[in-house]
Amino acid sequence: MIVVKIGGGGGVDLDACCEDLAGLYREEPVVLVHGGSQPATLLGEALGHTPAFITTPSGMRSRYTDARTLEIFTMALAGLNTRIVACLQQRGIDALGLSGVDGRILQARRKSTVTAVEPDGRRRVIRDDHSGAVEQVNTPLLSTLIVSGYLPVISPPAYTPDGPVNVDGDRSAALIAAAVGARALVLLTNVPGLLRSLDDPTSLVERVTGDDEIDAALDLAAGRMRIKLLAAREALRAGVPRVTIADGRGDRPITRALRGEGTVVVMPPGAHAAGAGAPGAAAGAPDRS
Amino acid sequence: MIVVKIGGGGGVDLDACCEDLAGLYREEPVVLVHGGSQPATLLGEALGHTPAFITTPSGMRSRYTDARTLEIFTMALAGLNTRIVACLQQRGIDALGLSGVDGRILQARRKSTVTAVEPDGRRRVIRDDHSGAVEQVNTPLLSTLIVSGYLPVISPPAYTPDGPVNVDGDRSAALIAAAVGARALVLLTNVPGLLRSLDDPTSLVERVTGDDEIDAALDLAAGRMRIKLLAAREALRAGVPRVTIADGRGDRPITRALRGEGTVVVMPPGAHAAGAGAPGAAAGAPDRS
Repeated sequence: MIVVKIGGGGGVDLDACCEDLAGLYREEPVVLVHGGSQPATLLGEALGHTPAFITTPSGMRSRYTDARTLEIFTMALAGLNTRIVACLQQRGIDALGLSGVDGRILQARRKSTVTAVEPDGRRRVIRDDHSGAVEQVNTPLLSTLIVSGYLPVISPPAYTPDGPVNVDGDRSAALIAAAVGARALVLLTNVPGLLRSLDDPTSLVERVTGDDEIDAALDLAAGRMRIKLLAAREALRAGVPRVTIADGRGDRPITRALRGEGTVVVMPPGAHAAGAGAPGAAAGAPDRS
Repeated sequence: MIVVKIGGGGGVDLDACCEDLAGLYREEPVVLVHGGSQPATLLGEALGHTPAFITTPSGMRSRYTDARTLEIFTMALAGLNTRIVACLQQRGIDALGLSGVDGRILQARRKSTVTAVEPDGRRRVIRDDHSGAVEQVNTPLLSTLIVSGYLPVISPPAYTPDGPVNVDGDRSAALIAAAVGARALVLLTNVPGLLRSLDDPTSLVERVTGDDEIDAALDLAAGRMRIKLLAAREALRAGVPRVTIADGRGDRPITRALRGEGTVVVMPPGAHAAGAGAPGAAAGAPDRS
């Protein structure tokens, strides 16, 4: 079982991903997760509701999701979801798209307030932000779909008892990979992986092993790459043996990532021998790692 | 098992429907189907892609669905789908939304050409219309979801091997009702039912029995009501014992429809004793008719 996250920032070659998956899926089950920040931004702009972004005190940048933005975000991601599902179906894969709300497949906690740091350094407390953090995955539902022969294609928003919330796609993918006992999580993006120098694509960090190196990598990373590294750490801690942050542009991006192209993030040998395996059995799918 | 279709033309009270379903769902499984012509039209207008409509030689009016319209239609219906799912979840129902594309739950045939009648009576052949007719329902998938405790919330577009197509929601609901062996199909709309005189809400036709009365009703009906009657006939012919076309405005619209408020369409006694029942067993859900 592998879990693949397609970036929402554009630049990932959707057709190449679907073509690649058509081959890989013959060998083992796959769950696909996707974001959609670019289509959500484009749709918001077209509808005259220009997206705003929040910078948190820890330096993370996230979409300010008021009620109207959540509506737009939901529509844009669902539109992309159906495009991906149709793209896979045209290659013979029985794909089934779900938002995290459907069947409560991604269960989140809404952040009651969000603190934003203004450009002048002042802090502002935001109370109408519909965003949250995924805390749990509906593993039995995922298992049922996988065992029934479907390739689930999952995207934000996520479920909360008070209504849908915007959640991070990379961290959702990490929780899903842990829930289904995936042998590998691939996070595709529009750069070759973690770069020592953003402007130099040859400065790729090829391997990050263990907590100390992840901490060092987090110091190196900016923006979305930081979130990908945090997601990688979450997945590893929850028993996923291997996470690759890799380039989604070009042919066979997933196959190349599984072969080690990109930034491979792992724990030191023996570090989580106890953790992995059981969730895979719960998902009814073999862990072929 | 009951199947309920919420009209896409606006006017149906979504909260009242969800509240009503929360009570009914304790007694028996439900599948909810919805359209979304109004949100699709509003989104198209907001995006500067004003919807166009086609009148066919048989007098049917349908949305002209070019590639961009299909994208807009898909996003608008998915947005409504998530709203309905969240509305049901807030009332304790484990709802799961799917477009007809997902898991090929609605399998359609694309119309290769559509003939439109212009206002001046001239005919025009349209070749880039992405619409079709649902021919089959993925009953095993529906059964799996229902048996697993989910209330499926299903909407167009539908699957074809060449990509998604716009399909009619009422006729989709009829096929789903037949597939799951529903004891009743309720088609909610924004009028009290079939009216002898469109301007007079007291001119309700309370009962339509058998093919001859359906033919007479079809002569009486215009626009969307014709399609609802055709959908009702399809459902009855496929073994659904009872279809009610009813008012979706006001409190407890589904309970009232099941009690006979609206236009009840049935076959004469004994007309389809052989047909019904078996699909219900296939769907793994008791037919409590």
